[in-house]
Amino acid sequence: MRVRKRKGAEEHLENNPQYVVLKPEEAKGRWQDVFGNEQPIHIEVGSGKGSFITGMAAKNPHINYIGIDIQRSVLSYALDKVLESDLPNIKLLLVDGSSLTNYFADGEIDLLYLNFSDPWPKTRHEKRRLTYKTFLETYEQILPEEGQIHFKTDNRGLFEYSLASLSQYGMVLNQVWLDLHASDYEGNVMTEYERKFSNKGQVIYRLEAQFPKK
Amino acid sequence: MRVRKRKGAEEHLENNPQYVVLKPEEAKGRWQDVFGNEQPIHIEVGSGKGSFITGMAAKNPHINYIGIDIQRSVLSYALDKVLESDLPNIKLLLVDGSSLTNYFADGEIDLLYLNFSDPWPKTRHEKRRLTYKTFLETYEQILPEEGQIHFKTDNRGLFEYSLASLSQYGMVLNQVWLDLHASDYEGNVMTEYERKFSNKGQVIYRLEAQFPKK
Repeated sequence: MRVRKRKGAEEHLENNPQYVVLKPEEAKGRWQDVFGNEQPIHIEVGSGKGSFITGMAAKNPHINYIGIDIQRSVLSYALDKVLESDLPNIKLLLVDGSSLTNYFADGEIDLLYLNFSDPWPKTRHEKRRLTYKTFLETYEQILPEEGQIHFKTDNRGLFEYSLASLSQYGMVLNQVWLDLHASDYEGNVMTEYERKFSNKGQVIYRLEAQFPKK
Repeated sequence: MRVRKRKGAEEHLENNPQYVVLKPEEAKGRWQDVFGNEQPIHIEVGSGKGSFITGMAAKNPHINYIGIDIQRSVLSYALDKVLESDLPNIKLLLVDGSSLTNYFADGEIDLLYLNFSDPWPKTRHEKRRLTYKTFLETYEQILPEEGQIHFKTDNRGLFEYSLASLSQYGMVLNQVWLDLHASDYEGNVMTEYERKFSNKGQVIYRLEAQFPKK
């Protein structure tokens, strides 16, 4: 998600350390302490403006959610939503999806979400796609054995690529939806982007995949 | 593909043994002898009215094609096309996709096509879908190590099911197309069905997948 630079975004994040973990490397291996409970931890890599993560956190109080984004302005908008929702089970991090092992110990994360990730359609940008093998290696490390990724997108090219990339990495597809909103899938929490594009008649793709046994 | 029973279909097939192999169990392990050359052999399971197999055979004279269908009337229409095209590299078989190991030796088939297979949408009919695991076992046996299946369909439910079924079987997805006719895939040979439904604006899905090392 690309947004215009937001004035005061940096201060906004720094002024809300109850939600924005400013030194996430210090939390590595002790995220349950950070949340103050022993609930499972789910992360969203590329959390955008935070609709999904706040919607999920409201719906599932017994799960802790961490939203990650690399863009300060984007994360500051997510913070607005988190402040508004005032939930105890959300944290936000301003970090890069490729550096997750700096912030999470092996197997510390129970489930990983990717929603409407940047498609990077040019072949020369393949390595930047969040379903490229180097990212998968990172996810595999912070997830438990046979850990899962849940991924949705409206971008056909990215979804085609991701099906093959995950499969070639050795992941197993547990389920695939080629028109999520026309399916009987229940409990979908929509992102801002998803709402906008599905209103335009765009098909939403979704998959659940798991890593192989270690 | 379902068609009305065709009068004289049985005689039509029996009168053309140069194309219709009437006792395929006797050809097991010696299909290259049947064709009289050492070319690779590709089969289409559920060859319908034969557009695909005759189109492919015309285009690829150095490959032998075998079209398989379980319905006599359907196969008799395919025979019309084969007679018309008068190509040396096609044979037709009136057999069931689940019994392929009766007619082909291990690794005897180089590539297997599934096109617009019956979707069998009801869960209780899952075992009849040509991408159900028992069929995959059969295909794996008659294909070489890391043998491939190329599959296309317009049926969303069947494609969703097949992506998961193949993956759970241990197959790797080499490539996936979620709108074949809008892609840059070259050399697509259309089936009758594909032409009809894509003209109506239906999306065509396609995948290439390979079995794991034995």
